[in-house]
Amino acid sequence: MRMTDIIEKKKRGLAHTREEIDFLIAGLLDGSIPDYQVTAWLMAVCFRGMTDEETAVLTDAMAHSGDTVDLSALGDGTVDKHSTGGVGDKTTLVIAPLVASLGGTVAKMSGRGLGFTGGTVDKLESIPGFCTELARERFLSQTRNIGVAVVGQSGNLTPADKKLYALRDVTATVDSIPLIASSIMSKKLAAGARSIVLDVKVGSGAFMKDVESARLLAEKMAAIGRASGRRVSALLTNMDVPLGHAIGNALEVAEAISVLDGNGPRDLTELCLALASEMLSLSLGISRETARARCLRALADGSAKHTLVKLVSAQGGDASYIVNPSKFPRATAVHTVTCPCDGYLARMYTDRIGITAAMLGAGRQKKTDVIDMTAGIVLLKKTGDRVVRGEALATLHSSAVAPDTAENTFLSALDFSHEAPAPQTLIYDILSDAADG
Amino acid sequence: MRMTDIIEKKKRGLAHTREEIDFLIAGLLDGSIPDYQVTAWLMAVCFRGMTDEETAVLTDAMAHSGDTVDLSALGDGTVDKHSTGGVGDKTTLVIAPLVASLGGTVAKMSGRGLGFTGGTVDKLESIPGFCTELARERFLSQTRNIGVAVVGQSGNLTPADKKLYALRDVTATVDSIPLIASSIMSKKLAAGARSIVLDVKVGSGAFMKDVESARLLAEKMAAIGRASGRRVSALLTNMDVPLGHAIGNALEVAEAISVLDGNGPRDLTELCLALASEMLSLSLGISRETARARCLRALADGSAKHTLVKLVSAQGGDASYIVNPSKFPRATAVHTVTCPCDGYLARMYTDRIGITAAMLGAGRQKKTDVIDMTAGIVLLKKTGDRVVRGEALATLHSSAVAPDTAENTFLSALDFSHEAPAPQTLIYDILSDAADG
Repeated sequence: MRMTDIIEKKKRGLAHTREEIDFLIAGLLDGSIPDYQVTAWLMAVCFRGMTDEETAVLTDAMAHSGDTVDLSALGDGTVDKHSTGGVGDKTTLVIAPLVASLGGTVAKMSGRGLGFTGGTVDKLESIPGFCTELARERFLSQTRNIGVAVVGQSGNLTPADKKLYALRDVTATVDSIPLIASSIMSKKLAAGARSIVLDVKVGSGAFMKDVESARLLAEKMAAIGRASGRRVSALLTNMDVPLGHAIGNALEVAEAISVLDGNGPRDLTELCLALASEMLSLSLGISRETARARCLRALADGSAKHTLVKLVSAQGGDASYIVNPSKFPRATAVHTVTCPCDGYLARMYTDRIGITAAMLGAGRQKKTDVIDMTAGIVLLKKTGDRVVRGEALATLHSSAVAPDTAENTFLSALDFSHEAPAPQTLIYDILSDAADG
Repeated sequence: MRMTDIIEKKKRGLAHTREEIDFLIAGLLDGSIPDYQVTAWLMAVCFRGMTDEETAVLTDAMAHSGDTVDLSALGDGTVDKHSTGGVGDKTTLVIAPLVASLGGTVAKMSGRGLGFTGGTVDKLESIPGFCTELARERFLSQTRNIGVAVVGQSGNLTPADKKLYALRDVTATVDSIPLIASSIMSKKLAAGARSIVLDVKVGSGAFMKDVESARLLAEKMAAIGRASGRRVSALLTNMDVPLGHAIGNALEVAEAISVLDGNGPRDLTELCLALASEMLSLSLGISRETARARCLRALADGSAKHTLVKLVSAQGGDASYIVNPSKFPRATAVHTVTCPCDGYLARMYTDRIGITAAMLGAGRQKKTDVIDMTAGIVLLKKTGDRVVRGEALATLHSSAVAPDTAENTFLSALDFSHEAPAPQTLIYDILSDAADG
């Protein structure tokens, strides 16, 4: 088999066999296929696409290219959640304990933030003492005991995806739906959960700019998961507006706690309920309506929050911060941004808001950057809100830089109008594998 | 400027600026742009194409990426010819002396054979003593004295093209008309002649399989040449059938001499006349009819052949082989292939005939292979000829291998039929820059 022939085949729009894809992934890993052949193939895939079957085979090959996590000891109820990345998305902090408090099994690996999106692992590390590295046995036993564990990626998971992604990143071959789908799903398959709920973000703060391409991606990912015997649901959700009000690590943990306390922002609470209901429904095989009712009860009776306290304690964190979020240190400097005009907040360029947060110290430009846990933004107005000149729009928080230096970037992320904009939709669609589909 | 943005731009179908192309070629040469980015860009070019202007700029950048040949001391009448590659194509051996004998200035660099196509430099080296490496000054002075010199490529000509071609070859990105056109024309521009005649081959033994894609390529190359102030004509010619009867180095030299003697195969003679008339017309600024009449006279009165004798002598070759081609050593073994059936020779897969010749020792699979100058094929029947079972179709010649081992490959290159096939067209079209268009 020759890589040149494989490239030629894809260039002509033909589908690869399993043997061809296995050859490609093996050669990518052992270096016998040079990068310059891989990237020509990647570009051909961008133009020609891949069939569902090809994509499933590619994903499977990448999922098995390194270590895989065996969660079988935890039974059939393991459930994972993946967001395609957004700004202000702290849902994992809410739904992992919420689902676990109701009998779902959440043995979860999460990522760190990069660019304008945050990462769950960073957010958890703003809790003093919280350890995101657990030995495999402890990860499993903690999940068995309290239903939930959240750790960073460890071990040599999906090295083929890492290598392929690094090449895509520098060759303008990122935006191919089969390549995105296989990259995400290879990590999810390797992470071992039997059920997977995908939160596919749509809008200015997301990779997918419109609902239809998000739907294509969601369907492709669901097809891949099902081909590997997983239950998969996908929600298509709004990322034209940041989720909730808080952006930045400690600020987001505090806001997540407010949702568990029953007084969180409405959009964030609603999305957490939708995701958690879907996860619980897949995990336990119950209807989504039943799952949602149980989730509401677990928020109301404090059992979800109690599970977060148990999770934080189990991983060495100081749970008093969860009980009393006012303990989180505030940034040494806070700057209030005021509104330059009267009217409505018509639009938020959410990616630019994420960039503002990163400028304040809440994110990383490169992997080695150190995060200021206190840094971030609290939005006082969001898209659709009426605004008056001089009124506070947001507060910018930082212990690392003078927060007013980020004001212009923040303001450049907003459009104002005289007319009220159309109302935002939070959840565009749910493609569900749950019992009552 | 970032290469990723350049790739993205081409992927989206946009045209590059001169600055972008200069950046790309400079980075390709100094290694600051890694090969894996270049090949992703090449694949995007295959899908998106390039405008005439972009292609001209790319060609110019490649032409000036290394040494260039300055022929200005030879005046404005310098003329070059380029064939896109075929089987049995020994036209340069005829037309270089023919055009020179009539006042055209032919300071020519030629190539070596690779794969199933032969190279002029190899053919000339079958003449004992013939030297295809001349110092720059001698190359110019010989051309000034006798009107013609033919050498191999020397110096560091178009290194960007060499690097780009090597990458295209292993990434299935060869078959892009702007990339083919810029590759060929960068070498022609660097080689310095003011006028260029292109012989674009069409058919089973050529890269272009149909007249329309050959026409596109020819037009693209002509546009590039004109953008650099060169006169360019292009002939679209038949390569569904090998040219003449002889394939293989010494066999082809002998056949070229037969054309100069006035008793060569009709197709070869006619193509030589067409190409030489076009060259002479561009070189001297005379009409093609006048040029053709002079060419016929130079063949008839022996002055073209006499110029070949002078050329061979000037470059150290034994000219007695030109005067008396029977001096060329014959292969130690000759095998006659007979016809397996009655009917017509309906089709020749010309590339496979080239492969047969290479198997016999007449060509190279890789650059370091040594050629058997006596090896090759003499075709006794060509497409359209009536054949009788048992009749001789061809003789296979080799001093290196048992020639009958190539018989099956040769026969697999032929289709027979009961009906006479449609007659072959030799020259499909001429796109001419000559005085009378």
